[in-house]
Amino acid sequence: MSDGREQPADDADRTGVWLVGARGNVATMSIVGARAIARGLTGTTGMVTEREPVSSLDLPPVDGLVFGGHDIAPESLVAQAERQRDRNGVPDAETLAAVRGDLAEIDDRIEVGTAVNCGAAVSEDSERLDERLAVRDVVDQIRDDYETFRERHDLERLVVVNVASTEPELAEPDRYDTRDALERAIDEDDRDLPASVLYTYAAIDGGHPFVNFTPSTGNTLGGIRELAAAKDVPHMGRDAKTGETLVKSALAPMFAGRNLQVMSWEGHNILGNKDGLVLEDEANAAGKLSSKGDVLDSILPDIGHNRVRIDYTPSLADWKTAWDYIHFEGFLDTEMKMQFTWEGSDSALAAPLVLDLVRLVAHADERGNGGLQPQLASFFKAPIGVDEHDFSRQLDRLYDYAEQHR
Amino acid sequence: MSDGREQPADDADRTGVWLVGARGNVATMSIVGARAIARGLTGTTGMVTEREPVSSLDLPPVDGLVFGGHDIAPESLVAQAERQRDRNGVPDAETLAAVRGDLAEIDDRIEVGTAVNCGAAVSEDSERLDERLAVRDVVDQIRDDYETFRERHDLERLVVVNVASTEPELAEPDRYDTRDALERAIDEDDRDLPASVLYTYAAIDGGHPFVNFTPSTGNTLGGIRELAAAKDVPHMGRDAKTGETLVKSALAPMFAGRNLQVMSWEGHNILGNKDGLVLEDEANAAGKLSSKGDVLDSILPDIGHNRVRIDYTPSLADWKTAWDYIHFEGFLDTEMKMQFTWEGSDSALAAPLVLDLVRLVAHADERGNGGLQPQLASFFKAPIGVDEHDFSRQLDRLYDYAEQHR
Amino acid sequence: MSDGREQPADDADRTGVWLVGARGNVATMSIVGARAIARGLTGTTGMVTEREPVSSLDLPPVDGLVFGGHDIAPESLVAQAERQRDRNGVPDAETLAAVRGDLAEIDDRIEVGTAVNCGAAVSEDSERLDERLAVRDVVDQIRDDYETFRERHDLERLVVVNVASTEPELAEPDRYDTRDALERAIDEDDRDLPASVLYTYAAIDGGHPFVNFTPSTGNTLGGIRELAAAKDVPHMGRDAKTGETLVKSALAPMFAGRNLQVMSWEGHNILGNKDGLVLEDEANAAGKLSSKGDVLDSILPDIGHNRVRIDYTPSLADWKTAWDYIHFEGFLDTEMKMQFTWEGSDSALAAPLVLDLVRLVAHADERGNGGLQPQLASFFKAPIGVDEHDFSRQLDRLYDYAEQHR
Amino acid sequence: MSDGREQPADDADRTGVWLVGARGNVATMSIVGARAIARGLTGTTGMVTEREPVSSLDLPPVDGLVFGGHDIAPESLVAQAERQRDRNGVPDAETLAAVRGDLAEIDDRIEVGTAVNCGAAVSEDSERLDERLAVRDVVDQIRDDYETFRERHDLERLVVVNVASTEPELAEPDRYDTRDALERAIDEDDRDLPASVLYTYAAIDGGHPFVNFTPSTGNTLGGIRELAAAKDVPHMGRDAKTGETLVKSALAPMFAGRNLQVMSWEGHNILGNKDGLVLEDEANAAGKLSSKGDVLDSILPDIGHNRVRIDYTPSLADWKTAWDYIHFEGFLDTEMKMQFTWEGSDSALAAPLVLDLVRLVAHADERGNGGLQPQLASFFKAPIGVDEHDFSRQLDRLYDYAEQHR
Repeated sequence: MSDGREQPADDADRTGVWLVGARGNVATMSIVGARAIARGLTGTTGMVTEREPVSSLDLPPVDGLVFGGHDIAPESLVAQAERQRDRNGVPDAETLAAVRGDLAEIDDRIEVGTAVNCGAAVSEDSERLDERLAVRDVVDQIRDDYETFRERHDLERLVVVNVASTEPELAEPDRYDTRDALERAIDEDDRDLPASVLYTYAAIDGGHPFVNFTPSTGNTLGGIRELAAAKDVPHMGRDAKTGETLVKSALAPMFAGRNLQVMSWEGHNILGNKDGLVLEDEANAAGKLSSKGDVLDSILPDIGHNRVRIDYTPSLADWKTAWDYIHFEGFLDTEMKMQFTWEGSDSALAAPLVLDLVRLVAHADERGNGGLQPQLASFFKAPIGVDEHDFSRQLDRLYDYAEQHR
Repeated sequence: MSDGREQPADDADRTGVWLVGARGNVATMSIVGARAIARGLTGTTGMVTEREPVSSLDLPPVDGLVFGGHDIAPESLVAQAERQRDRNGVPDAETLAAVRGDLAEIDDRIEVGTAVNCGAAVSEDSERLDERLAVRDVVDQIRDDYETFRERHDLERLVVVNVASTEPELAEPDRYDTRDALERAIDEDDRDLPASVLYTYAAIDGGHPFVNFTPSTGNTLGGIRELAAAKDVPHMGRDAKTGETLVKSALAPMFAGRNLQVMSWEGHNILGNKDGLVLEDEANAAGKLSSKGDVLDSILPDIGHNRVRIDYTPSLADWKTAWDYIHFEGFLDTEMKMQFTWEGSDSALAAPLVLDLVRLVAHADERGNGGLQPQLASFFKAPIGVDEHDFSRQLDRLYDYAEQHR
Repeated sequence: MSDGREQPADDADRTGVWLVGARGNVATMSIVGARAIARGLTGTTGMVTEREPVSSLDLPPVDGLVFGGHDIAPESLVAQAERQRDRNGVPDAETLAAVRGDLAEIDDRIEVGTAVNCGAAVSEDSERLDERLAVRDVVDQIRDDYETFRERHDLERLVVVNVASTEPELAEPDRYDTRDALERAIDEDDRDLPASVLYTYAAIDGGHPFVNFTPSTGNTLGGIRELAAAKDVPHMGRDAKTGETLVKSALAPMFAGRNLQVMSWEGHNILGNKDGLVLEDEANAAGKLSSKGDVLDSILPDIGHNRVRIDYTPSLADWKTAWDYIHFEGFLDTEMKMQFTWEGSDSALAAPLVLDLVRLVAHADERGNGGLQPQLASFFKAPIGVDEHDFSRQLDRLYDYAEQHR
Repeated sequence: MSDGREQPADDADRTGVWLVGARGNVATMSIVGARAIARGLTGTTGMVTEREPVSSLDLPPVDGLVFGGHDIAPESLVAQAERQRDRNGVPDAETLAAVRGDLAEIDDRIEVGTAVNCGAAVSEDSERLDERLAVRDVVDQIRDDYETFRERHDLERLVVVNVASTEPELAEPDRYDTRDALERAIDEDDRDLPASVLYTYAAIDGGHPFVNFTPSTGNTLGGIRELAAAKDVPHMGRDAKTGETLVKSALAPMFAGRNLQVMSWEGHNILGNKDGLVLEDEANAAGKLSSKGDVLDSILPDIGHNRVRIDYTPSLADWKTAWDYIHFEGFLDTEMKMQFTWEGSDSALAAPLVLDLVRLVAHADERGNGGLQPQLASFFKAPIGVDEHDFSRQLDRLYDYAEQHR
């Protein structure tokens, strides 16, 4: 454990974390958590990398992570954390007080970002790169921001993580299916390219490992994947599996394994944070609902009816509550039911996974394993390049990786 | 599919199923289901052996199973099935009408059994072997019943399955830890030996594969296990995992896998069938509650509080309803909650597993694999000789077995 | 109790029941129930008029009710009842068998109706009055059907009940705010008038007591109310309170009474019958959702957030399942939660109320009490002319009426 | 609103509140709440007396209440409040900081009490009156404590409220059915008399209005009721209705009112505060479970099965969570279900009712209305002398009282 200053013992350990959407709920909670751990104020409950067998890997220490990022929101990280404390009770007052100085220091490293094609719901009255620059220049500016940060803090490695609000789905993504097509679009100032793609392109092209924590397009494009393979840069996504979908990926295999026929699976989510507000906008919700729905369709190919709803309920703030109703048929055509309610703090569930993913992607990068990282499938609702949605089986891939590299 | 008569095409397929507790809920539903499948009236939903990869094994066909059994209840199988139809709606009227003749025929093959040390709750005003015979003679009579049935129906193989009501836990089971000690106790007319042990001993000693579907002592005794190993007879148990515990074994690994700290897991079961009534008797409940509780303690060794209750609610009949409340802690000490309700027809969930186990134990016997069958762990709350309680991992053992033997 | 034939002892008791939507779920279940009661096959559980103090009123006996009606669906009442038996298990096979003859007899008395302006969701490939007749002629035909039925069966009184599928909300209902305006519209063949208004107008104008069991426009129009007052015909509505809203009207007063501040009340309904399908059409749902929402807004004027959803889940058939989540604040700004799940057979909850309302409206008519019937407010989600939504207080009005007239 | 000092403007308003169990959860929260209201830090949500029509009565102001009490726990009020803040999050840190001085001042006024016959579960290693004094002397000491407090603070009136942990049920309470018998027992040092009776006797005999907030014997004894009638002292009880039972008393009338037959009502409560621990002791639980069960038996006399469980789940602290499962039958013998989960902070629900009851009993005393106070029935699970358990009807009595006295 460090003395609480951001001064890790060993240069080899200096890993940077660049958060796209650095003042959002998830980013704020990740930073607060990492600094609280560094200062010995809290444990590492919720972090997969702190539990056997993954904890036996040689991973960058949490207290050595150096944070920076982009955002278009003008409100400071401290103000964001205070609002979360007041609305959700997480972080608690004592923890926030102890890391307030760290947050202020990190806030100074957050640069103005882009939000092109992020949908009406996230458009705010704030400064944005895309208002004054061509697409290629936006990319160059982002890339510059990454590089400047890395040099200034003398980082061995910089992991870029997209934790910004969900974008609307991109129409006809196939047009960017090759690296060539994508780069031509950038050069030709193609204004259809959404912000998530620009951040991702800049990261991969600059050799920085990348994690897409959201349902946004980012590294799902064929062009990006080709680039990452060519440059041997590790990347993975998309859409972190934190709550209701996590439960589905653990429960649905039980119905499959016992040959029980799920006739209907209704999932109804209510939440009151900015994510809820953005998803209330139908265009932005489409991507999210699709990756949530796919999990069941994949594990239960014979499912009769599968619907997911997300509604905005302001009083719940960051507390995402889901009710799932499962109507299934067993032996002798007997109809039976299971229902569950999940009440989780969305950010507190997501934040430790950000730290886990940064550490694991850095580990792959250190060992020269570029391209997609299928061993990380368990972290995502729609793991790119992986068909397995059974949570246990996804975890087994991670454990196999840990065994291999310990 | 057969023509509906109990005449399977091939002698090699003639597998007998001897049900201890042959007029109970689970036995009745198993027989009704097997005959309804044989007559083409229902599908095989709920049967693990009818789904890939297990279905690719060469297993005895469901329509060739020949049923017999012991019971102390005087009421006929048809009457039992009618009561289940009236109280639970399972089986439905049409199905019961179609198999009524089969049930009557099978009922004639049910012999008077023993219920020694089965607890006050199951003692009924009925004829019982143990009232007039010494322990050794009871064992001999049971063995005789098995053998007579096998010969009369020209069966290649007889699988004995204990589906009788749960017995009170046996005090000091270690005294029967060797085959010698156990056989001495039988010879010395040791009246502490419970019925389940006598049925099991007679089965294993006679070379019949055995399944302990209940929490009763049966094949958990060291003496029985030694005997089965010596005689190379396959056997497995105990306590079939049908409802709430099944869900626990699928969900608890999710909390473990994400390093979430479960502080309390409360499980409250209500049901209205005879099992519920028997378990209302505290002595009989002890064994059941212990095997239910062990699942969580094994998967979540750091669990703070783990309680299971079973209450008798007559109006629910065979519909077992469970409410589970899970209080857990995540990142930054955030307290969160999950709760679920499970509403299942106990017998309809259990019955297909009886058929699965009969087929899989017969398969092992056919191939000369005696002793405990760890590949069947997924079927049990307390799999004898297996420490793994994670349902997905238990299933993987079965799938590996299927791959090996396909 | 009668001998099972539709021959009530006393002419004075001969009350007719004319069901608009006579082959729908609710109508079918009402007829099956009334005939099953008449034949002594079932009790009167679920009927408010069979419980003190209301049961002490001199009401037309259930076994004397004579059924007829309109529908546009060509499928017979028997076929409808069979489908309900098969899909929902209600009525059970035995009951249906016993009343099948009665259903066939009643089916012959069902006339072709109209479905003008009933929305896309209910338009079927069926014969309809409005296709060949002018509005005035449709009204005259309906009125004729009522009168012919009354005469043929020598009825003392005919109560008309609208139990047809929910119509889309009528735009600008104020244009029909007077009797004059309404009658002018009928004469001028105003095709905006929805079917429910035509049935209601024909009933009231013909002197027949009327009940609007649905959210459709019917007797909520000012013009209809003026007519009923002028002709002194009793009528009441709208939208029978059977499930989730009934619970709300019992629970919300508890929060109000204890001065607890409800911040959010989310209600999520799923069901699989034709009502669910019709309500999936947004236009048709608007009226329903509005009357469901009003209950909370009335009882809890300071409620922060109040949303109701109705989704179509085919496998549930007639079983309406609702999940309600109530987030409230108490002393010292403490946030607390209540949630409930309601699983009810929609038709089985509605049917006894149809019989109750027929009997109670007939009672008012017998005593010459025309116009709106506020003592019946407890039966409706949106009781016309009554502001009280607290179920207990609404019931008190009924009990007061019973005391007064016993 | 006062300036925050305990100096109400008007002597006529000076009402004292003597809390038996003054350092318990409920007492602590009541004091914190009253002082937070006095200091303008929180609103009066949760207080029935702050809502129309009750708020129009001329009641003693909350900011003028002067607190004192008895306890046997040595831990200070401040320490208790801190533990509640840390374990439950209520009160919040800011509120507690603001009233800490008030708590310390009030703590000095808490005298050593008695805990005779309070059961094993509440016996602690603490000083107690009954260890060194005869029963009559304990009574005199208690009475003296009341009087000294009243004089020292120049109070117009002192209301005594029992909020101590639940005692075991008293065997054969009939032996104290008259005032004579009770006073003879006190004089003869009858050690069967439980603490609650001694506190109550001292209060009533001294002319102090009394509220029994708990299920303990207190003012249910015939002898106490005779005394209160003779001395014209207002008193009421018992067992405040705060959570699951409150919901039952609002919901059960709905089933009754619709003539739905409740076959089973299972209630399962889990909580982690000292109340939960005490109730885990079967003897102490008996009284509580009895008053909880009576509500349903009274409202639903035909109920088939009615069970209440209370379990101790430490991690929940003061958050009482109840799951209720209601299995009911409707029209055509259709079986249906409702279930609810209630998650409430026990103390935050109880505390405002303590303040309400003090104010309302003081109001009755001021107007010379002695004896039982049936208008307060809505506050109690087992209202002494009142058969009505329907929450709405109980509230109507309070509203009638408010109308009468406004």
